[in-house]
Amino acid sequence: MKPICLEDGKVILIDQTLLPSELRYIECRDVECLARAIEELKVRGAPALGLAGAFGLALAAMGSKRMSKKGVLMDLEAAYDRLKRTRPTAVNLQWAMDRVLAAARTSDDPAKAALDEALRIYREDIEMNKALEKVGAELIKDGDVILTHCNAGSLATSGYGTAQGIIKEAFRQGRRISVFAGETRPLLQGARLTAFEMVRAGVPVTVITDSMAGFVMRNRGVTKVLVGADRIALNGDVANKIGTYGLAVLAKEHKIPFYVAAPTSTIDPAASSGSDIPIEYRKRGEIEFFNEKRVVPREADVLNPAFDITPASYIAGIVTEKGVLLPPLDRSIKGCIG
Amino acid sequence: MKPICLEDGKVILIDQTLLPSELRYIECRDVECLARAIEELKVRGAPALGLAGAFGLALAAMGSKRMSKKGVLMDLEAAYDRLKRTRPTAVNLQWAMDRVLAAARTSDDPAKAALDEALRIYREDIEMNKALEKVGAELIKDGDVILTHCNAGSLATSGYGTAQGIIKEAFRQGRRISVFAGETRPLLQGARLTAFEMVRAGVPVTVITDSMAGFVMRNRGVTKVLVGADRIALNGDVANKIGTYGLAVLAKEHKIPFYVAAPTSTIDPAASSGSDIPIEYRKRGEIEFFNEKRVVPREADVLNPAFDITPASYIAGIVTEKGVLLPPLDRSIKGCIG
Repeated sequence: MKPICLEDGKVILIDQTLLPSELRYIECRDVECLARAIEELKVRGAPALGLAGAFGLALAAMGSKRMSKKGVLMDLEAAYDRLKRTRPTAVNLQWAMDRVLAAARTSDDPAKAALDEALRIYREDIEMNKALEKVGAELIKDGDVILTHCNAGSLATSGYGTAQGIIKEAFRQGRRISVFAGETRPLLQGARLTAFEMVRAGVPVTVITDSMAGFVMRNRGVTKVLVGADRIALNGDVANKIGTYGLAVLAKEHKIPFYVAAPTSTIDPAASSGSDIPIEYRKRGEIEFFNEKRVVPREADVLNPAFDITPASYIAGIVTEKGVLLPPLDRSIKGCIG
Repeated sequence: MKPICLEDGKVILIDQTLLPSELRYIECRDVECLARAIEELKVRGAPALGLAGAFGLALAAMGSKRMSKKGVLMDLEAAYDRLKRTRPTAVNLQWAMDRVLAAARTSDDPAKAALDEALRIYREDIEMNKALEKVGAELIKDGDVILTHCNAGSLATSGYGTAQGIIKEAFRQGRRISVFAGETRPLLQGARLTAFEMVRAGVPVTVITDSMAGFVMRNRGVTKVLVGADRIALNGDVANKIGTYGLAVLAKEHKIPFYVAAPTSTIDPAASSGSDIPIEYRKRGEIEFFNEKRVVPREADVLNPAFDITPASYIAGIVTEKGVLLPPLDRSIKGCIG
């Protein structure tokens, strides 16, 4: 499954808001179309957002009417600014765009350099995630009951996943495992996307509401919690989908190891701790309406942070393409990127 | 607001599934209508279920065509069996029906005795909840930020609430407080009912998804967690809406006191601990569809326990109409009902 790719001068992506009922692809020929698709979460997941950013700059480069290098770079920078505004928490978006822009700036043919770099990031993402799946699969034992949250599967990447990619790889390797997928309110990426991926892969999956996590940890023999990440600070604090922190606290209480899976590009060298990571607040309508039916009184306030921070102290390990980073995470992260 | 009452030989109740969009009353003239309303959660909340059970037996008594005492009792027993099957966890339902049936059995006019006892339970529920509100309001301090879950407000009782009744009473007494209401998946009683009650009472309320509880405890200065209960075991273990246990664990981690509010009729003398409390599993459709839209793949499993057990060790106090039961809860419960 390719959730996002660049073909014939278009970015083609699965509209993930329609899953699991409908598998529909949409095409973006310009940056604005892509920026809106990101804002509306038609494409989501930290690594996939990196690809979207890279492909977005490639679209801008290919579509630029300017003749001079300076002119093309101006178009690239405008695209960069527009795309950066879409989602503030996932660092991969900015990381990938920074790479594309830097490649364009140091080339005599910035448009070609932008395109080449975007495609290089895409190929690297595939290799990185394949490597990460293999590393992570070694952690999974026969009989594991894995609780996961949101979606960091193939839909969140170039086509190989992080957290759910590991689960599928371990299953392919023959481990008998089962999965609890938290539905992941408000937008239900766990129910809609992770369950969809697990079903397609044949992995036994049970969907629960997020509020059932404590119940299944206590009563249903959960042996591991495994989630993705949208940004990782140098001290090992992890930003991920809202609800992740609560799972980490529950895992600690039940003495269940809590693992994070993310490529090293998710580590933000500019964030020394979780408090340096900006948290995206989304519109109240995502909670206020339930498939267009009002479920919150108009007069009530609504809070809708899309992410939370899980402090490093709750994390048993971070699975990356280079190996599993173990506590103390500040030191192992330093060793990994330093 | 009267969520349920008995008038002119009919049980009149608010259809709580339509709130907050619509405030509509429905009427039940027979036991089967009422049993279905309970199963479909048109009426819900432990104390209100007790009233529904009592009123249901009153309907059966008034509607009985039998002439003999034995015949009327047979009709009452059939109604008892039908209503008991509706919801297994809330002990109040059985407790109230046991009272009505006992009154009928010991009277020469069982129909009149059943009706009188049902109305007595109703009046007692009002008095009990008023008393409980006063007791609990003393726990609430100026400036408190209270996280609550599900609905144990006036909609869950005869018209005065337990957990949310306390909040409203403290607010009426002039305490400046604010409330976070967890939406309470899958049926959103927090978003729909608690927020509705808070808005009507003028209490500042912010709705969050259940997965945001850790976030608001960590970042938004929550000072107390306060929830209702569906059944309390003799050792102080509490059955309440699914998600309650997770909140208790999070509260402990953040050193926030976790309070339960429930009338003493919620204590089940037959349950020595939480493991004696039956947990109701509901249909997968409540999670599988989101306002009739499929959000879980057909092939995925779904788990839908309606309640969880919070061990006594997590509970700072149980607010009852007779006072606040403090740890050790097994001893204070014994003192209270003994």
